[in-house]
Amino acid sequence: MIHRVLAADLPAHVGRTVRLSGWLHRRRELKSVSFLVVRDRSGLAQVVLREPVPYPEETVLEVTGTVVANPAAPGGAELAGAEAEAETGTGAETASETGTGTGTGTRPVAGSPAGPVVEVLSEAVQPPPFDLYRPAVPAALPTILDNAPAALRHPRLRAPFEIAAAGVAGFRAALDGLGFVETHTPKIVGTATESGANVFGIDYFGRPAFLAQSPQFYKQALVGVFERVYEVGPVFRAEPHDTARHLAQYTSLDAELGFVRDHRDVMAVLRQALAGMHASVSARAGSALALLEIELPEVPQEIPSIHFADAQELIARHTGEDPRGEPDLAPAHERRLGEWALREHGSEFVFVTGYPMVKRPFYTHPDPERPEYSRSFDLLFRGLELVTGGQRLHRHADCLAALTARGEDPRDYAGYLAAFACGMPPHGGFAIGLERWTSRLTGAANIRQATLFPRDLHRLSP
Amino acid sequence: MIHRVLAADLPAHVGRTVRLSGWLHRRRELKSVSFLVVRDRSGLAQVVLREPVPYPEETVLEVTGTVVANPAAPGGAELAGAEAEAETGTGAETASETGTGTGTGTRPVAGSPAGPVVEVLSEAVQPPPFDLYRPAVPAALPTILDNAPAALRHPRLRAPFEIAAAGVAGFRAALDGLGFVETHTPKIVGTATESGANVFGIDYFGRPAFLAQSPQFYKQALVGVFERVYEVGPVFRAEPHDTARHLAQYTSLDAELGFVRDHRDVMAVLRQALAGMHASVSARAGSALALLEIELPEVPQEIPSIHFADAQELIARHTGEDPRGEPDLAPAHERRLGEWALREHGSEFVFVTGYPMVKRPFYTHPDPERPEYSRSFDLLFRGLELVTGGQRLHRHADCLAALTARGEDPRDYAGYLAAFACGMPPHGGFAIGLERWTSRLTGAANIRQATLFPRDLHRLSP
Repeated sequence: MIHRVLAADLPAHVGRTVRLSGWLHRRRELKSVSFLVVRDRSGLAQVVLREPVPYPEETVLEVTGTVVANPAAPGGAELAGAEAEAETGTGAETASETGTGTGTGTRPVAGSPAGPVVEVLSEAVQPPPFDLYRPAVPAALPTILDNAPAALRHPRLRAPFEIAAAGVAGFRAALDGLGFVETHTPKIVGTATESGANVFGIDYFGRPAFLAQSPQFYKQALVGVFERVYEVGPVFRAEPHDTARHLAQYTSLDAELGFVRDHRDVMAVLRQALAGMHASVSARAGSALALLEIELPEVPQEIPSIHFADAQELIARHTGEDPRGEPDLAPAHERRLGEWALREHGSEFVFVTGYPMVKRPFYTHPDPERPEYSRSFDLLFRGLELVTGGQRLHRHADCLAALTARGEDPRDYAGYLAAFACGMPPHGGFAIGLERWTSRLTGAANIRQATLFPRDLHRLSP
Repeated sequence: MIHRVLAADLPAHVGRTVRLSGWLHRRRELKSVSFLVVRDRSGLAQVVLREPVPYPEETVLEVTGTVVANPAAPGGAELAGAEAEAETGTGAETASETGTGTGTGTRPVAGSPAGPVVEVLSEAVQPPPFDLYRPAVPAALPTILDNAPAALRHPRLRAPFEIAAAGVAGFRAALDGLGFVETHTPKIVGTATESGANVFGIDYFGRPAFLAQSPQFYKQALVGVFERVYEVGPVFRAEPHDTARHLAQYTSLDAELGFVRDHRDVMAVLRQALAGMHASVSARAGSALALLEIELPEVPQEIPSIHFADAQELIARHTGEDPRGEPDLAPAHERRLGEWALREHGSEFVFVTGYPMVKRPFYTHPDPERPEYSRSFDLLFRGLELVTGGQRLHRHADCLAALTARGEDPRDYAGYLAAFACGMPPHGGFAIGLERWTSRLTGAANIRQATLFPRDLHRLSP
């Protein structure tokens, strides 16, 4: 029986007869020889045939042949077989017996006795929306998104998702190592309380319900159960803005932990989570990084941190503008802070802490020394907000007072408040948008390039 | 500075002054001494005080004191301090400086100079719905579900979720090791095609849309991109049945892989995933298993397998009934097969393969030798269906024909078919319901006991 070998592993099998399985990525016919490039999950491999190949690109193939060293081939080896007649002959017979053919309609195609043998597993009946074999993507974003199932096969379009998967694995590994428990919370909720607008309504067995905008309330309640929890899951925003950074569904990496001293303990855990994400990408998505020519930024041992008020001072000192009194940072000012952190601290990351309470949700913990400021933070990466987090209120009476001060009816928050009535420790947490992280890391201009099948104001398929 | 020590780690710190942080799980006042049991994420620890404790259960505390060996205490050590006056004194002072108090309202409570010092971090203003410290849960399911944020703090009610988290981690680890890529697909879809009924409708920016019942179509399309994919995420069923095993939202562990020979390659991967889940539970959730007195069943190297037709023969032979001609197995017959597998093969798991095509979705691959049977399977665990899976159609023409034969309009499946038009390898996959797996493993009578905040026909909160 001839085993399948992945394209990337071909060089380790020189001289042996193997089976390659994958898609016909590209074919080039010369006078007396054809070059096939076969694509599988590991990469590309070249096959040399003595006859023309009558199949279009994206045909699913199995090729059985002998691995030959060829410094000119990708990876330094290719499937050929002129000098291995006997083995290739044997290979061809065995392949028909052990191929992945399903017994109906598999069509063995005899190669020349001296060359690899090609078997078609599945025909492509329609060309992809653009040439998948061109190194640069020859298509605009709408074409890519409209044709995602085929378009994502392009190695450059697939690569961000290999990076995302590695990043999530690193996030979990870091938090697992810190005693966190993974949770799965409801995405259908009975009240649209957390941020009011921008929720999707559902018909829930004839009753109105809503898609959850975040697991915020649940992860806080679960601090009372597990102390440290995380969740990786979809969140939903009925975002009426059609921009390069808004999605109606995205993947939120949420964490929350109890028994914190203040927001700095949360920031320390966030740093570990990010470092875990980067380490995992480095270890598990090296070829995707190489393909996209990405140099992974270092997550410093100590990410520089600046208080919101000091950040405004800094901006006032370095620009003609005076943002003091503004309750938030303008995008241009975030970029300035990114430049400052890189210049002064050599860091592409910078924490801004102490955002004014007026711009933060009711559950935010104020700074006891300066109650107009909060114990919250944003993490900027390359001058753009990547993560939001902070310490939350933990005393039942404080939660009640904060709701009342904002004109909210505590009865609308009964489920949330129940956890606090039974004793909650000082706690805090953060949320990282996975697609945002991936697009910033890969330099994507549009967050949709880091989303397999994006959902937005206009897009509901594929 | 005195570091926090988890309850479970107390015995390793005998003779040292440490800080315990957690909930007041239980208190018992004797004439001259009080016993506090403090609960944290690791377990329980006993504290001995010389004075009464005026706080109710679930108060969030920090206790600073000296660890003393006591064979009668849980774990063989407790926080006391009579013989460690000097250290405890120092401990108390340091604790006020480095405690997790937030600076507003932390109330240090002096212990006797010779005993541990208790500090209240957060008061419980309402008793839990039942005594959390009783070893058996003294409440019925509706009480538990209505009061989940507090009820789940009971160690026996929390334990299934520690097992679930470990299981999911093992699922991912096994598939990561096999070259799978983790994906995140849309939960909002434009058509209710996959199973027609039982979908939740959404108002999507004024257009009708639906909550996804499974990532089936997306994971198949992504086989064309990554070959091997998995997803752990919520799926939604507008289940009009109010039973012990139906949920409106559950967590589906979905996997799909390309270049399979037939459904047996899928079953082999499922076995590896399950073995990974059990290994991870054993390694990571040992104390939850011990608390619930669960002996983890072995996943055999080779799970026994029986064809649907042979299963019917077997049932006919062993019972007075003759189920032949029926297109599905009755629950009683599944139990019979479970008993048979245990008796004949010593396995708590058994595959039933080849379910009749008429009971399987249109994308199911038929058995070429006996086209009325499919290349699908169910995995039964202790006589109950745990997993469904199989090989899928992979040729574009076969998908079209199958849809047409079922009276479906292929235009309603345009997004799905696009992947197949561009060449799809033979593939298959499976889906494990996380809550179902957890409840079967823990012997829960109701799937809601394995769901943090269940959603069903009647329940939309907490």
